[in-house]
Amino acid sequence: MKGLHEILALAVIDRDDDQIVYTAQIDPIYTIGPKVHGGSAQMLAVNAAHAAFLEWTGSEAPALVRADGQSPVPVAITSTYLNAPNPGAIELRARLVKRGRTVSVVDVDVVQDARTVITSTVVFGILDHGEPHRSRPTEARDLPPEPPADAFFLDGSPMTEIIHMSPVLDLALDPASFPASRGEQGEPVIRGWVRPKSGVADLPFVTLVCDISPPVVMNLGIFGWAPTVTLSTYLRRIPSGDPGAWLRFANSSIEVGRGMFESDHTVVDSTGVVVGQSRQLALIPAKPVNGPAAG
Amino acid sequence: MKGLHEILALAVIDRDDDQIVYTAQIDPIYTIGPKVHGGSAQMLAVNAAHAAFLEWTGSEAPALVRADGQSPVPVAITSTYLNAPNPGAIELRARLVKRGRTVSVVDVDVVQDARTVITSTVVFGILDHGEPHRSRPTEARDLPPEPPADAFFLDGSPMTEIIHMSPVLDLALDPASFPASRGEQGEPVIRGWVRPKSGVADLPFVTLVCDISPPVVMNLGIFGWAPTVTLSTYLRRIPSGDPGAWLRFANSSIEVGRGMFESDHTVVDSTGVVVGQSRQLALIPAKPVNGPAAG
Repeated sequence: MKGLHEILALAVIDRDDDQIVYTAQIDPIYTIGPKVHGGSAQMLAVNAAHAAFLEWTGSEAPALVRADGQSPVPVAITSTYLNAPNPGAIELRARLVKRGRTVSVVDVDVVQDARTVITSTVVFGILDHGEPHRSRPTEARDLPPEPPADAFFLDGSPMTEIIHMSPVLDLALDPASFPASRGEQGEPVIRGWVRPKSGVADLPFVTLVCDISPPVVMNLGIFGWAPTVTLSTYLRRIPSGDPGAWLRFANSSIEVGRGMFESDHTVVDSTGVVVGQSRQLALIPAKPVNGPAAG
Repeated sequence: MKGLHEILALAVIDRDDDQIVYTAQIDPIYTIGPKVHGGSAQMLAVNAAHAAFLEWTGSEAPALVRADGQSPVPVAITSTYLNAPNPGAIELRARLVKRGRTVSVVDVDVVQDARTVITSTVVFGILDHGEPHRSRPTEARDLPPEPPADAFFLDGSPMTEIIHMSPVLDLALDPASFPASRGEQGEPVIRGWVRPKSGVADLPFVTLVCDISPPVVMNLGIFGWAPTVTLSTYLRRIPSGDPGAWLRFANSSIEVGRGMFESDHTVVDSTGVVVGQSRQLALIPAKPVNGPAAG
């Protein structure tokens, strides 16, 4: 079994003053259907950006999986998806755009078979901590900290035929906000719980979770692949480190058009604090079919 | 008086197969305090990206101000702000990243005094039209289509000492969601109305409006410059073309931390349809002062 940290292993194949090129391997676990999960690909880009940033700054700060909030880390990552990558070998080409006192910027291209498949801009800053000035209500925080027995668990469900990540994470969907699982329709809001199968949620995991939900358009009876065009993820805090603790998420859309929809994840940790949020613009599936959730 | 379209004038100073360099002039009207307004700078980047895209594709499609929704236009623009630009001459360096059947991507750097001050990724696609699959409630659509007499109008207010755009646009804030104007505090949600002083709202104007609101942290008693780190704007539709019609916006934050806050604009046209939306990550003002709105 591949652990969550194994996929983050990087090997440098080229470097100069403002570019470092890594190779990495994407295990087939990190796929939705045949293609690499967008949030997992972004997680790899974020991790490579951070590794390169530590090199450029000669920093002794810990790797991203052990970030302690004292040193600059990626706080905002926008990835534009040019082509859907396949599992297997990729190159991660990190380029230093700006090194600043408050904010630094690193671009990362994901290259596969000599083609750029994802291009990302990663902004570095200091994570928040302490009491927030204001936390407004979110549909994620309304969930109980742990999934109830009647939640829709990924493990053992037909969804595992599509979402292949169950070896590395637990995922449970709130049945009230996933009517698609019963062949019913509802508002474009899907909520749920997620945690790593082992260890605690770290910043790379939060990045992945910011794109974990099934497409909200499933609740409108629209099934099929809803390709992400662009995905902006904000990492806000390091999750509380209780082993076995779940993160909660809500994924919702304000406006589902005929061709495109935006979709926002809000992710809170077991204490209810916002640890990550994302917004993406995605395409309505080209050939929507009215079918079961696993269709 | 400088019209809204004058600032969009571009002159080509260099071009090759995959890069076009333009110069433009940013009038001091488009400033907040001494620095260029982030949404106005993004408007210029979007417009330059579109002009370059028309050249690369040999397209006869209209310029962005007259876009009719039939041809690809910018649908998602993420800008990262490296340094706050000053009014005056800028260069806009557009580079073709991908030309695709469904989605194309153009990067644009804004360069001033030989320094890259803003870097943007612009995704092209086809705007939505027709009946949306689903529009969820937004705090923008709850406003009446026109500002009431007791709205907080920019024209003639002390805010014009900070926001200099009143020669080209009308702006009115909903008094109920702008308690800062009365020295009071409230939730981090500011709503209002905006329209061009002449003509109708076009796609460049929607881009600008997606960053028109005062910082929501003012409602928490936090004043001062709240620098935008990164701003992602989605253009969803061409606004209805009624002369004199107002756009409505709501700007809100889920999580205002000690160091950073996210801030989302939703913009609807006079018919209530979502025409634009944005999310930004911004810094809490470095030296917050508890003072009046114009402080």
